[in-house]
Amino acid sequence: MAALGEFGLIAEVSAVLGPGPEGLEGPGGSEGPETRQDATGRKGPQILVGIGDDAAVLAAPDGRVVASTDFLLEGRHFRRDWSSAADVGVKAAARSLIDVAAMGAVPTGLLVALAAPGDLPVSWARDLTRGLAAECARAGASVIGGDTARGPSILLAVTVLGDLAGRAPVRRSGAAPGDLVAAAGPLGRAAAGLALLAAGLDEPASLLAAQRRPQPPYDAGPEAADLGATAMIDVSDGLLADLGHIAAASGVLIDLSAGRLVPDEVLLTAARAVAAARRHGRLGRTGRGSPSAPPDTPAQDALRWVLAGGEDHALAATFPPGTALPSRWEVIGEVREGHGTPGVTVDGRAWAGSAGWDHFSAGEAS
Amino acid sequence: MAALGEFGLIAEVSAVLGPGPEGLEGPGGSEGPETRQDATGRKGPQILVGIGDDAAVLAAPDGRVVASTDFLLEGRHFRRDWSSAADVGVKAAARSLIDVAAMGAVPTGLLVALAAPGDLPVSWARDLTRGLAAECARAGASVIGGDTARGPSILLAVTVLGDLAGRAPVRRSGAAPGDLVAAAGPLGRAAAGLALLAAGLDEPASLLAAQRRPQPPYDAGPEAADLGATAMIDVSDGLLADLGHIAAASGVLIDLSAGRLVPDEVLLTAARAVAAARRHGRLGRTGRGSPSAPPDTPAQDALRWVLAGGEDHALAATFPPGTALPSRWEVIGEVREGHGTPGVTVDGRAWAGSAGWDHFSAGEAS
Repeated sequence: MAALGEFGLIAEVSAVLGPGPEGLEGPGGSEGPETRQDATGRKGPQILVGIGDDAAVLAAPDGRVVASTDFLLEGRHFRRDWSSAADVGVKAAARSLIDVAAMGAVPTGLLVALAAPGDLPVSWARDLTRGLAAECARAGASVIGGDTARGPSILLAVTVLGDLAGRAPVRRSGAAPGDLVAAAGPLGRAAAGLALLAAGLDEPASLLAAQRRPQPPYDAGPEAADLGATAMIDVSDGLLADLGHIAAASGVLIDLSAGRLVPDEVLLTAARAVAAARRHGRLGRTGRGSPSAPPDTPAQDALRWVLAGGEDHALAATFPPGTALPSRWEVIGEVREGHGTPGVTVDGRAWAGSAGWDHFSAGEAS
Repeated sequence: MAALGEFGLIAEVSAVLGPGPEGLEGPGGSEGPETRQDATGRKGPQILVGIGDDAAVLAAPDGRVVASTDFLLEGRHFRRDWSSAADVGVKAAARSLIDVAAMGAVPTGLLVALAAPGDLPVSWARDLTRGLAAECARAGASVIGGDTARGPSILLAVTVLGDLAGRAPVRRSGAAPGDLVAAAGPLGRAAAGLALLAAGLDEPASLLAAQRRPQPPYDAGPEAADLGATAMIDVSDGLLADLGHIAAASGVLIDLSAGRLVPDEVLLTAARAVAAARRHGRLGRTGRGSPSAPPDTPAQDALRWVLAGGEDHALAATFPPGTALPSRWEVIGEVREGHGTPGVTVDGRAWAGSAGWDHFSAGEAS
């Protein structure tokens, strides 16, 4: 990458993204001020000016733009020995794109700031870009810009833009007592995959894939807004932690039903495999918990993944009582009066386990 | 910062930014879906949802949004022993905000991703935020969101959003033979300030300030668009390098007039002071050039700052022949037929000096 330089990398990235629905105009594009008209008829997000100018120009037909920025850091959110470059691209894009969906908006554009060591192979950056572009396409968005720099490890700061298409934004602060609490998308699978990777295991493969390439349910966000969701968030830090943000912002208590959050057989299989690896001393240094504490049982591990595992980027939302929800929205609890600590309970009680996300190597971050 | 944690830092940042024209709703805001109406009557940029939710929502009245992302890295773009935290905030904001102005748009919102060591004082982060907010206010924009993470050194990835207010975006690709080339804003002053800092000098103070707190002419961008600018760019890498981007994208040659780019007395004073410091061996390790090459004369140094010095973030634009330009736009050259290398000449000849930006410590970046 050092030899290629910043301008070379931009050209590489533009070449990978290519023309088409999610395409970009190259640095040498000469459409001039008429691009708006030229682009208006395109399918997909309307990129009026793409990569290669001082800034990109993207259609914002609603008259409002939704925007969010998230880091994805090597060693914290991914490891190069556990994830391919394309995996990292998918994860970086997914992590940001879902933030816009969690407001009830449709993702439209992504800006990617990439810092990387000078010896990063160009092929790695190219595959990263392919992953970013692929996940953008799945969400209906496009990579529209970015920046590159050298750094000691790989770091991405990804900004997503989105369009509300006339909807009111769904905030964290609108939950009211009596509302249903529901979730769309997987819970606990990315955390299970992380535990499997840390234990050196490669089955069940679907859970490893969930950790490497989360597949958030983007269209469930605007769907929830249309259904009248009163509050919404994406599950990035763990279900209890993220619903805790809704509880705090709304001044309510959220009570989950343990019976609605029973880990399925795939998670239990993974938990048993991790427990067996632990008995055989195969747990890597990223295993969780204090070495002196007794290990959780497999059932406890699996439940912890569901309640406290991050990175699935499922959506959690509250809906007025009686809302008829499509099947992918599973009711998991109810909003109650009151506020305080804990803001989220399970069957009326504080959950005894840890509520936060197991970072890859939180103790080692510098 | 480690003790405070991410959520604590977000709260700190929100507190610094406070309410008001550039204000933000706190994490506990409960304006709900009615925020759009509530905010419509505000002065300044319309923040419909601010920091503390999954994403921010910003008015985009034009129906298009302009967006760009830029890194600002410790050791490369600033040093903590040379710049205060507020200086760094101003510089990070300025560097991004001007990219939107260079498209002919008005900056509206900023998203700031900040990675920093765990031992960064909270006061430093707070002052950084004050600097960001102050420069945003100068440009008419607001900080609307961000992310924080731990990293080995300070890194900012700043995304700016802007509104075209009905204008066609001014690209790099529209320059045509016969067009005037003009610049608005200072040239060479930030580079002179960097040379002074490297030499351990603190006069002329205006040049040190230009390096620490660049003051780009934001409103000159939309002004140029209204005047019919055919191409525009901000001078971040150096006048020759950045006009080279316009020449390449437009398929033209740009010829500058040396007589229009004569360094003023302040720059010459600085160059003489740097030369004297060099003779007395006071040049720090960030001094430029090969140690074995004969040093440039003060006049050569000053001219190099004007032609190749980056970070002033002046605007350079091309205009149709005969355009009547306001006084802050100084004509510095002309667009000619042809394309190739060099894309930019001075009085018809390639410039013999280096055309790129002197990084702080380019040889040491890892």
